[in-house]
Amino acid sequence: MTAPRVNGKVYLVGAGPGDPKLLTLRGKECLERADVVLYDYLANPAILTHVPDHAERLYVGRRGKGKYPAQDEINRLLIARAQDGKTVVRLKGGDPFVFGRGGEEAEVLASAGIEFEVVPGVTAAVAAPAYAGIPVTHRTLASTVTFVTGHEDPDKPSTGVEWPRLATSHGTLVFLMGMKNLPAIVANLTAEGRS
Amino acid sequence: MTAPRVNGKVYLVGAGPGDPKLLTLRGKECLERADVVLYDYLANPAILTHVPDHAERLYVGRRGKGKYPAQDEINRLLIARAQDGKTVVRLKGGDPFVFGRGGEEAEVLASAGIEFEVVPGVTAAVAAPAYAGIPVTHRTLASTVTFVTGHEDPDKPSTGVEWPRLATSHGTLVFLMGMKNLPAIVANLTAEGRS
Repeated sequence: MTAPRVNGKVYLVGAGPGDPKLLTLRGKECLERADVVLYDYLANPAILTHVPDHAERLYVGRRGKGKYPAQDEINRLLIARAQDGKTVVRLKGGDPFVFGRGGEEAEVLASAGIEFEVVPGVTAAVAAPAYAGIPVTHRTLASTVTFVTGHEDPDKPSTGVEWPRLATSHGTLVFLMGMKNLPAIVANLTAEGRS
Repeated sequence: MTAPRVNGKVYLVGAGPGDPKLLTLRGKECLERADVVLYDYLANPAILTHVPDHAERLYVGRRGKGKYPAQDEINRLLIARAQDGKTVVRLKGGDPFVFGRGGEEAEVLASAGIEFEVVPGVTAAVAAPAYAGIPVTHRTLASTVTFVTGHEDPDKPSTGVEWPRLATSHGTLVFLMGMKNLPAIVANLTAEGRS
């Protein structure tokens, strides 16, 4: 009889919005202990300086399409490395649970019986406006802020984005990953009455 | 003729949601260099271990009312200490620009000609749900998330909170500082049709 294999643990770590100093102390600690790090183009590579030399670095970029592992393959890697007893860090741009598919990865890990911890990060949805001098809320100007995916095809018939509602809200709107769809986002908002 | 006095600088630092390890590396660095720190009950006191012994610590709490300096007095202290040439850290719970009145403090500093830097933090609006296992967005379940002040009196006639809009949104809603108003918040949402 062999001893039962002990699973490792997966850390879903928010890398912050780009500035490597906006990583959290806990995020740094996780990277320093990692045996394996999965990262993509959304996390600043400067953050990898915290990773020990012996650790395995897996780039799972997904900018553009086809060249890098699909989400299923990322999920498979997270589970496989944890089942090998490794301490695994999945580094996500911003916060893992703000449009980061961290929710899906957490579900997959829970289903596979792999222990995991979510380490929240500074989301670009707040930090990018801040670096541009814009507070997303203000006591006299904006009592709500809404983050919206800018990545969804705005011409999709069954859109999850409620354009009339967003267009007429008095609160701040922040679109994430919306550069490609910017003309369509602006068209949808102005068509519904936004200035 | 005396040399002109050189102003210090104010750092508006997000302390994160409570866990002292969710402070950012940049936030820690600012605290380590501080001559003066202004903090309140929203920032975990454990974070003050990063502050040098010689630094002045000013508690500007404001839990309850009347016992602690009003916002005007906080603004006055920020300006006065910076004009004394000090490096000043204003430690805010969560992120300075998410319901933190950081926007107002930034305006006051800009008007007074005081140099300042905003250091974004992990907002409790994302981290508290995450620690409870709830991703605020999810590719198939929630394509928007809205943060709402829970601190506004919900019976105020000219409310800035758009209850019908919020009640019928398909996205995630996060109310901040809403414990006292929770019954009224729930009543407003259910009256407008939220389950």
